Amino acid sequence: MINTIPGNVIAPKGFKAGSVHCGLKRDKRNHDIGIIFSEQPCKAVALFTTNQIVAAPIKQSRNAIQNGTVQAIVVNSGNANACTGKKGEKDAETMALLASKHLNIKPDEVLVASTGIIGHHLPMAKIKSGISKSSEHLGNKNTHAINIAKAIMTTDLVHKHIAVKAKIGGKEVTIGAIAKGSGMISPNMATMFCFITTDAAISLNTLRSCIKKSTESSFNQITVDGHMSTSDMVAILANGMAHNRAITSSTKSDLALFQEALDHVTLKMAKEIVKDGEGATKFVQIEIHETKSISDAKKIARTIAESPLVKTAINGEDPNWGRIVSAAGYAGVTLDESKLKLAINKITIYKKGLPVTPAPNKLNSAMKKKEITIQLHLGMGNKSATLWTCDLSKEYVKINADYHT
Amino acid sequence: MINTIPGNVIAPKGFKAGSVHCGLKRDKRNHDIGIIFSEQPCKAVALFTTNQIVAAPIKQSRNAIQNGTVQAIVVNSGNANACTGKKGEKDAETMALLASKHLNIKPDEVLVASTGIIGHHLPMAKIKSGISKSSEHLGNKNTHAINIAKAIMTTDLVHKHIAVKAKIGGKEVTIGAIAKGSGMISPNMATMFCFITTDAAISLNTLRSCIKKSTESSFNQITVDGHMSTSDMVAILANGMAHNRAITSSTKSDLALFQEALDHVTLKMAKEIVKDGEGATKFVQIEIHETKSISDAKKIARTIAESPLVKTAINGEDPNWGRIVSAAGYAGVTLDESKLKLAINKITIYKKGLPVTPAPNKLNSAMKKKEITIQLHLGMGNKSATLWTCDLSKEYVKINADYHT
Repeated sequence: MINTIPGNVIAPKGFKAGSVHCGLKRDKRNHDIGIIFSEQPCKAVALFTTNQIVAAPIKQSRNAIQNGTVQAIVVNSGNANACTGKKGEKDAETMALLASKHLNIKPDEVLVASTGIIGHHLPMAKIKSGISKSSEHLGNKNTHAINIAKAIMTTDLVHKHIAVKAKIGGKEVTIGAIAKGSGMISPNMATMFCFITTDAAISLNTLRSCIKKSTESSFNQITVDGHMSTSDMVAILANGMAHNRAITSSTKSDLALFQEALDHVTLKMAKEIVKDGEGATKFVQIEIHETKSISDAKKIARTIAESPLVKTAINGEDPNWGRIVSAAGYAGVTLDESKLKLAINKITIYKKGLPVTPAPNKLNSAMKKKEITIQLHLGMGNKSATLWTCDLSKEYVKINADYHT
Repeated sequence: MINTIPGNVIAPKGFKAGSVHCGLKRDKRNHDIGIIFSEQPCKAVALFTTNQIVAAPIKQSRNAIQNGTVQAIVVNSGNANACTGKKGEKDAETMALLASKHLNIKPDEVLVASTGIIGHHLPMAKIKSGISKSSEHLGNKNTHAINIAKAIMTTDLVHKHIAVKAKIGGKEVTIGAIAKGSGMISPNMATMFCFITTDAAISLNTLRSCIKKSTESSFNQITVDGHMSTSDMVAILANGMAHNRAITSSTKSDLALFQEALDHVTLKMAKEIVKDGEGATKFVQIEIHETKSISDAKKIARTIAESPLVKTAINGEDPNWGRIVSAAGYAGVTLDESKLKLAINKITIYKKGLPVTPAPNKLNSAMKKKEITIQLHLGMGNKSATLWTCDLSKEYVKINADYHT
C-alpha cells in the first residue's frame, strides 16, 4: 500500500531544504539556488548523463559519490556551468566547499548540480551568497519543500515533486523526490534532475540496484526533443532514520516493497517531465509489443517518439498513422509489414500491412484527447517496452528560437 | 568544364517527357502524373529507400531494375501507394503495364514511382487516364521539362531541376535531372526522388559505381526532419545517344569527367531539396573535421543536424553554440572536449573546451545570414564530412500539424 503525502524531499525523516534567489534568474521571486540536507550521513547513489560533453558539476559529483556517502546536495538553476573548462571545474568544487563549511560536513559529502545556459562562467559572488543564505534557511516546512522544487526549474512551467509512504520492515518508510526538466530531454539516462530522498535503512548495493532498475523504465524511457543534456543527474540519498530492518538483497519482500514505492516515485517524476515538455499540448504513451527483445521495442518506441512528423501530426490531432508505421520501418529493427498491428487510443487503424477500412469514425475524436496512447504490435516475439513523449508544437519552436544566449 | 543548360531530364539526346493533371492533386493547374521516356533503351541503375516499410512502387521498381535496362519512368504525386498491401502492389504493376503498352516497350523496362500520402489506395481510373494522356503529351520542349519537374512536387514550394553539358570521350555529353523532396527527408539513402537522364555511353557497372559514389556525398548527406520515407528513389538512365567513347573503369579521364558532372548534378539537387525543406528559412552546412574516420564525422554531423534545439536556435538566429557542442557529445563518437574548436560562419566561438571571450561581435549579425556554415574540428584525426540541413520553424510545425490525412 503506497500512500502519497506532501513534503517531497523533506518528507522523509531527517531531511531539510533551503533555497533563495541569488540573482541567476532575472525575476527576484524565483528561487535559483538551494540545498537539500540530511541530519545524518546518507548512503547515496547517483546516475549521470552519458553525454561525453559533461558539465563541471557532473565531474565534481562523479568524484564525490565514489565513497557512497552524501549528506547534502547543492543545486542552482539559470546556469549549467557546462563547457566552462578548468575554471568551471574549480567553481563546482568551490560550491561543494562552501556548502560543506556552512553545513559542517566534508566537501566530498556534497553533490553539486547546475542547470541552465551552457558556456557561461558562474557568477561566483552570487553563488557564494546564495549558498550561505540557503544554508541559513534550511527547514522542513511545506514551503521549504515547494521552494526547493521551484528553485531547480528552468523552462519548466510546473514544479515536479512527490512523496510516498509505505510500511517496510515493520516501519513507515518515506521516499520523496523533486525533479526538473522540460527541454533537452532524451535521456539515455536522465537529461534532467531528479533528487530522491528516503529515510529507509538500505544497503548501498541494494540502493544502487534499485535506482538503476527504476531509472531504466522511467527516466531512460522518456524523450521530449531527443537532445541529451550535459548536466543530467538522478541521485538518491538514504539516511536510515526510519529504523526499518535494513533492506538488502536477502530481505526479498521488503526489497520488493521498496522497489515498488521507488518505481512509483520515478515514474511519476518522469511522466511529469514529459507532460511539462517544452510547448507540449499532448502526453503520448508509446507501447511496442510482440518484439524479439526489449531493446528492439525500445528502439522502435524511441524512433517513433523522435520523429518530428509523428510529433507534429499528434499536435495537429491528425491520425496520420503512416508516419508512425514508416518511423518503425527505419528504427533498425527487423520487422514484417504483414504482421504489424497499430492502434491509437485502443482504436485499431492498421492491421496485417493494410489500413482498416473504412477508417474508424471515432478516431478523429480520439485524437482530440489530451493523452494519446499508441500501441504497435510487431508479431515477432513476446517482449515489449513503453516510452513517454509529447507532441511538437509551434510553441516549442517559439520557446527555443527565442531563448537567446 | 561543366556548363549548365536548360531542359533538365529531356536535355540529353533522345529523352522526352509528358505530364498532366489526372485528379490526384486538388488544384487542376498542378500536374500530378508524368512519364520520362527514352527513344532508346537505357542502361539504368536505381537506389531505393532503406526503410523496411517500403511503398508498393519501390517493390515494383526493385524488380524491374534487375536486368539493368529501363526505357521509361512513370511517376505520380499526391498518393504514395504505401502501406497498401497486395492491392497496392497490383496497382503499381498495373501502372508499369499501362505505361509499357502506350510506349510500346516491355513492362519490366518501366520504373514506377509514387509520392504523397501514405495508406490510401490509388484511384486507378484517374491513374489510367493520366498515364494515357501523359504518353500522348510526350515531347522535348522546355515546357515539357518544367511540367515534369512540377508534376513530382508534393509539399515542395519550388521545382528542382538541372542539366549540364561536358565534353567527354570526344563528344558533348549531357546529364539532366529533376528532384522532389521537402519533408520526410533524412536519407540514408534518399527519402526523395531524383530522376537523372544522360545520353552518355557508359557501362552498366560503371554507371552503378558512379551513382552510388555520387549519392553517398549528396542525397545521403542531407536531412530535413530525420524521418526516412518509404518511397525514395534515385534513378539514372543512360541511353548512349551521345556516341562518346564508352565510359568504363578503364577510361580514367573520361570517367573522372563524368563523375564530376554527375556529382555536380546530384549535389545541386540535394542542396535544393534542403533549401526547400518544409518551413525552412535557413540553409545550413555542417562540416565536421579532424575525425578518425569519415563515418565518425558523418555521425556527428547528423546528430547536430537532427537536434531540434540546434535547428530552432538557428531559426531564432541565436548563436547558441552550447547546443551544437552538446549534440556532438551524444553522437556516439569518442571526443575530447579540450581539443574541440567550433566556428559559425568562420567566426570561432569555442576553442579547447572554452568559449571565446568576449563573444565575437560579428556573431550576431552572422546568424542573420540566410546560409549558415557550422565547422567543428575534433582534433582526433584527418577525416571529414559535410552534411546539409535547414532550420526548424513554426512554419514546419504548421505544415505538418495541418497536413491532414
